[in-house]
Amino acid sequence: AATHKIAVLPGDGIGPEITAVALKALTAAGKAEGEEFVYTEAPIGGAAIDATGDPYPKSTEEVCKAADAVLLASIGGYKWDSLPNAQRPEKGLLRLRASLNAFANLRPAVVLPQLADASTLKREVVEGVDILIVRELVGGIYFGEPRGFKEENGERVGYNTMVYRESEVERIARVAFEAAMKRGKRLCSVEKSNVLEVSQLWKDVVIRVSKDYPEVELSHMYIDNAAMQLIRNPKFFDVVVTGNIFGDILSDEASMLTGSLGMLPSASISEPGKPGIYEPVHGSAPDIAGQDKANPLAMVLSAAMMCRYGLNLPKVADRLESAVTAALDSGFRTGDIMQPGCKQVGCQEMGEVVLSKL
Amino acid sequence: AATHKIAVLPGDGIGPEITAVALKALTAAGKAEGEEFVYTEAPIGGAAIDATGDPYPKSTEEVCKAADAVLLASIGGYKWDSLPNAQRPEKGLLRLRASLNAFANLRPAVVLPQLADASTLKREVVEGVDILIVRELVGGIYFGEPRGFKEENGERVGYNTMVYRESEVERIARVAFEAAMKRGKRLCSVEKSNVLEVSQLWKDVVIRVSKDYPEVELSHMYIDNAAMQLIRNPKFFDVVVTGNIFGDILSDEASMLTGSLGMLPSASISEPGKPGIYEPVHGSAPDIAGQDKANPLAMVLSAAMMCRYGLNLPKVADRLESAVTAALDSGFRTGDIMQPGCKQVGCQEMGEVVLSKL
Ligand SMILES: CC(C)[C@H](C(=O)O)[C@@H](O)C(=O)O
Ligand SMILES: CC(C)[C@H](C(=O)O)[C@@H](O)C(=O)O
Repeated sequence: AATHKIAVLPGDGIGPEITAVALKALTAAGKAEGEEFVYTEAPIGGAAIDATGDPYPKSTEEVCKAADAVLLASIGGYKWDSLPNAQRPEKGLLRLRASLNAFANLRPAVVLPQLADASTLKREVVEGVDILIVRELVGGIYFGEPRGFKEENGERVGYNTMVYRESEVERIARVAFEAAMKRGKRLCSVEKSNVLEVSQLWKDVVIRVSKDYPEVELSHMYIDNAAMQLIRNPKFFDVVVTGNIFGDILSDEASMLTGSLGMLPSASISEPGKPGIYEPVHGSAPDIAGQDKANPLAMVLSAAMMCRYGLNLPKVADRLESAVTAALDSGFRTGDIMQPGCKQVGCQEMGEVVLSKL
Repeated sequence: AATHKIAVLPGDGIGPEITAVALKALTAAGKAEGEEFVYTEAPIGGAAIDATGDPYPKSTEEVCKAADAVLLASIGGYKWDSLPNAQRPEKGLLRLRASLNAFANLRPAVVLPQLADASTLKREVVEGVDILIVRELVGGIYFGEPRGFKEENGERVGYNTMVYRESEVERIARVAFEAAMKRGKRLCSVEKSNVLEVSQLWKDVVIRVSKDYPEVELSHMYIDNAAMQLIRNPKFFDVVVTGNIFGDILSDEASMLTGSLGMLPSASISEPGKPGIYEPVHGSAPDIAGQDKANPLAMVLSAAMMCRYGLNLPKVADRLESAVTAALDSGFRTGDIMQPGCKQVGCQEMGEVVLSKL
């Protein structure tokens, strides 16, 4: 039993509401296992812009770096949409990831039996889907240099660089192979090596690393085909490893298989000993912010991922996940996942249901 | 009535089989309208590698440039998969596109009522979907320089450049706005301008061009969100305009909504007066090549698109499209789109059915 320092970044929109629910659940689940959490709150995104003019202020960075793990809700909103890019909420998120070197973004897309009908895909296609997307998060075209604008032959040109070095691919590949070993032992590496040199390097390194994991069945897929197969036959996939922008696209697409963005957590992990970032896949939903309508379950499950991957507290994670399952089994639903025959509740009431199941 | 010079590139795998069917149908449909087609065949892709060592030989380039339009089947196969990239079939395709400056790739994703149940998505979600994806085809990260490999701090680095200049975005935007004017007057521009400078330029130019099309309702979407919305609510989309790699991904994803890759044609058009390229969206399917199992309908519909967009022969196009619809209405299906209660036929027999409906 110990004390765990959590940096809490509620962010914007529905962030504060779902954070409040998740922290109560986390505290209770921890107590049951004799674990204590100490929360230090700090602003990020739009909230930080309003407070300090900077979407990721130095003070927030310090809180995050001093923590054992960072629990982040969601950022952004219409209010800040017209700011220049460098000052927008998203930039705060990218700087947070980079400053913690949170290079491995794990995004599970699990179709819960209770929600299999919520998907726009046919039940028989998505039932039992359990995919883990491992996305490289601090490299690739998101951070590649050179980037920017120039003038050429009298017109403006915009450009970015998609770049990967061997060591970057190797470390994300290892995370993916390790994850595959703990799951179905199948790994699909997604790139566009029939066109891009950066993808050829990616593929070469993944093949090299695979020699250390002879038990894992490795396949390679072009990103266009992967976008197709995710819909055609999602059960083909166990673990997927891919670069930053391909992972951005594929993980959002995969999230739709589940029909319930409000249920999906994610983890962005760094080197051993450094804090990772745990956050829901969904956004800040400014249209329903402050109305007690948000689904807090992805945030509760993000806290569970934090316990499992970041704090090595699998029992606390189990408790949180079981409580979420029990809440669904009892028929409680927020509006986004409402189904006939279920009982619709708001964000706070869903929180109380989860607490009662803990 | 006139004579039209068609460069015919059967390519690899099932290419020759489906080409044979499409040419017969095209000749017959033309005859009925007093139009004559003259076909000049040339090798591309694997077939060209085997014949000349080059996936896009000079002789093929000359045939294409001298033609009124290029009808392409499909390229690639296992046989050439281990060649270095510069010598692979795909490279022939990329060079063909560049040499003709075929900058605007039009990919319709239409859910035919006869095939609405073939989709892995629920019927009510996809019924009536009619999306036109307009993909920039000769720029972006596919062709951007600098690109390649380098050594840095003792390790290999792979890199590519995603780049767009104003004039490139402007011309593809105009094609998309013109297409929207002829359809539902809604255009969605897809990019990642919250992260990439190249996408900010893209968005700026699209907004500028939109001033010339006040009737078209323009929206903007990030690529990750678009990949999600295509599954969540595909009916939102009318025309989509996007860059080369985003279009590669989105159009393949969209094709899956229809559940019938074997039905989807595409057009890649160049400046006025220059030949465009017309080809099915599906690949060369080497696993079923030469077995008379392929679905020739996407190829017939590609010939129809050629007549409509490339040769200004809308009546011939109408005839071909009606014949395909009639063949489906009569219950004939190739294996890929087979449904209970229908009659399964091979590639040649499907061709004869189409001919009989012309
Ligand atoms: C908000 C945006 C910068 C971010 C990304 O593209 O990484 C988001 O889409 C995500 O996937 O977390
Ligand atoms: C074969 C490949 C180079 C090509 C592309 O990526 O453009 C294909 O996927 C397509 O979409 O036509």
